[in-house]
Amino acid sequence: MLHQHRAQFPALKNKTYFNYGGTGPMPQSAIDVIIQTQAHIQDIGPFSMEVYQWIAPEIAKVRSIIAQELNVPTSTITLTDNVSVGCNIAIWGIDWQPGDHLLLSDCEYPGVIAMAQEVSRRFGVEITTCPLFATLNGGNPVEVIAQNLQSNTRLVILSHIIWNTGQFLPIDKIGEICRDNGSLLLIDAAQSAGVLPLNLTELAVDFYAFTGHKWFCGPAGVGGLYVSPAAREKLHPTFIGLSSVILDDRSRSINWQPDGRKYEISTMAVPLLIGLGEAIAYHHQWGTAEERYAKIRHNSAYLWQKLAELPHVKCLKNSPPESGLVSFQLTNNQSALELVKFLESQKIMIRRVATHDCIRVSTHYLTLESEIDQLIAAIKIFCAL
Amino acid sequence: MLHQHRAQFPALKNKTYFNYGGTGPMPQSAIDVIIQTQAHIQDIGPFSMEVYQWIAPEIAKVRSIIAQELNVPTSTITLTDNVSVGCNIAIWGIDWQPGDHLLLSDCEYPGVIAMAQEVSRRFGVEITTCPLFATLNGGNPVEVIAQNLQSNTRLVILSHIIWNTGQFLPIDKIGEICRDNGSLLLIDAAQSAGVLPLNLTELAVDFYAFTGHKWFCGPAGVGGLYVSPAAREKLHPTFIGLSSVILDDRSRSINWQPDGRKYEISTMAVPLLIGLGEAIAYHHQWGTAEERYAKIRHNSAYLWQKLAELPHVKCLKNSPPESGLVSFQLTNNQSALELVKFLESQKIMIRRVATHDCIRVSTHYLTLESEIDQLIAAIKIFCAL
Repeated sequence: MLHQHRAQFPALKNKTYFNYGGTGPMPQSAIDVIIQTQAHIQDIGPFSMEVYQWIAPEIAKVRSIIAQELNVPTSTITLTDNVSVGCNIAIWGIDWQPGDHLLLSDCEYPGVIAMAQEVSRRFGVEITTCPLFATLNGGNPVEVIAQNLQSNTRLVILSHIIWNTGQFLPIDKIGEICRDNGSLLLIDAAQSAGVLPLNLTELAVDFYAFTGHKWFCGPAGVGGLYVSPAAREKLHPTFIGLSSVILDDRSRSINWQPDGRKYEISTMAVPLLIGLGEAIAYHHQWGTAEERYAKIRHNSAYLWQKLAELPHVKCLKNSPPESGLVSFQLTNNQSALELVKFLESQKIMIRRVATHDCIRVSTHYLTLESEIDQLIAAIKIFCAL
Repeated sequence: MLHQHRAQFPALKNKTYFNYGGTGPMPQSAIDVIIQTQAHIQDIGPFSMEVYQWIAPEIAKVRSIIAQELNVPTSTITLTDNVSVGCNIAIWGIDWQPGDHLLLSDCEYPGVIAMAQEVSRRFGVEITTCPLFATLNGGNPVEVIAQNLQSNTRLVILSHIIWNTGQFLPIDKIGEICRDNGSLLLIDAAQSAGVLPLNLTELAVDFYAFTGHKWFCGPAGVGGLYVSPAAREKLHPTFIGLSSVILDDRSRSINWQPDGRKYEISTMAVPLLIGLGEAIAYHHQWGTAEERYAKIRHNSAYLWQKLAELPHVKCLKNSPPESGLVSFQLTNNQSALELVKFLESQKIMIRRVATHDCIRVSTHYLTLESEIDQLIAAIKIFCAL
């Protein structure tokens, strides 16, 4: 069953793939629907009334497919290019006042840190960083965050699954303490959307920024942002275009769109969006979100165990991960970058993460135990070089 | 020669197409390269060192192809999704002070007006609108703009070719008076990029925002922004991501990129970008920018003349346009929207523009006189209904 399902991913045919957290491979059905959509738009347009009558329900369908993955109303979904655009929409849309506080963790993605720093510079916002890396193998991240919240904390930015260490954060509890403190919570969902079964309606999360091209296995260049209905009332749009507004009969903008389109800008790559919808639908042919997550954890635990048995390897986490990410360091002074190069020469794809000079392996539900065995064997060969 | 060249555009095969100013049809070579690129990335990745070694020079090539179209250094090009994103980058990157002035014309695109209004609200910027529509058939737009500049005008936003009327603005002279006044000039190039032969290096233009999917005939979802080297020194990035920054060896961002990438955000739709490069290259197989523009003006003049001879039609311009856009109204109380629907039922694609309840026809260098004759004949039939 899994072998048949995997056979529909061209990228998995000629290599041993462990970079799902970087870019997911696309199922053939998503590749096909992109090609067909491009051709169909040329056939009936590319610009005509018929095209727009055809596109509108197709995009509504994609929005609905995404909303179902997150268990939220369709109206809360903004279509974006990637995680970073979603984070920018949230961070720039707040009515910042000088002296406001923004709380980050010490494990956030460099692009997110850079945008926070520019907001700080422009609006006189104070940024502090709370030490979550130290809680990877003990300690309580919820307590750390509670200790670092201030009365003037307007926004907290955290990852649901941390990109370099694979640590899972209990966003349910964290959301509650942020809400109690009157702070908005923006989640970088790069490594959690498409991995965790999600019910954002039950979480006190204001913004959840995700991409289609990682664990969802959609095309690069499309993603989305969830904005809770309450947060949408207050969050201003920043980058704006025709998609953001309602027009009167003379094309004068008279109001913002009443839903997630408020933060959309203008012309989108429609074939890619429809491709993302198809990629998500394809995963459901294998199993539910719960079944896929169980398989992801099974695979990452299997990998973690095998790595723990290797003499010159130290996993960053000292217990099996609650995500698909397993990061490890070499303890024998061999170079992480050289290991990545060596493995790529064997058609085994992993990546180095510079923040901790470590190697990050992503296991999806698509991963085979035999692929993990291959990886372990290749690491052994490298360490014996 | 033109018939052969046109035969490579699938969208032109089964209809009479006049919506180049909305969305251009894609040449088959661009469609093919998108499909091949997607397949190649799956073959060698989608995420691997080999992928990034392959992508980097490909993107550099696209940036260079675009830069050559505008006659500017490659380092001045920012890759974006569309015109609106480019305008947003410029308008939000200025260090606005309360009381600053922003000058628009009364002919700008609703999305541009909406972003200016939000900037005005957030930063206490005064917006005024100068009456350019009144200069469509007489009067001097340069003088109008000169009269509307104020000592506190930080930014002027204009179109090179106005989207609804097709009016061409002398940006060379306008750029000079803006520079003399110490005002930055942002050009909405939606209807000029891919139409006019451009040499932005010779113009006093600070920002030129364009898209790939209109007159360049590239895929929807990719475009660009020119930022002059002097303007780049002062313009802050707003939406930010990993693409905007230079990282140190521990992935900490240490500076902005020293070129147009400063305003890029994160993961892009690489196949679409390469498709845009191919579309631009394809136009060169037919003729130079000068030759294409001459043919565009020949076609729009031919259309304008034929429309002027029709009894129930009034062209907005009382002389042939300096662009590919011809807009007209019906003077016999028939509905513009019904005419568009009628023509689409005959597989003739034009669009209604709500701002002046008019009909806008786009003629490209690809347009045949026989297509224009067909359109005129169909309008006659409609008016006789």
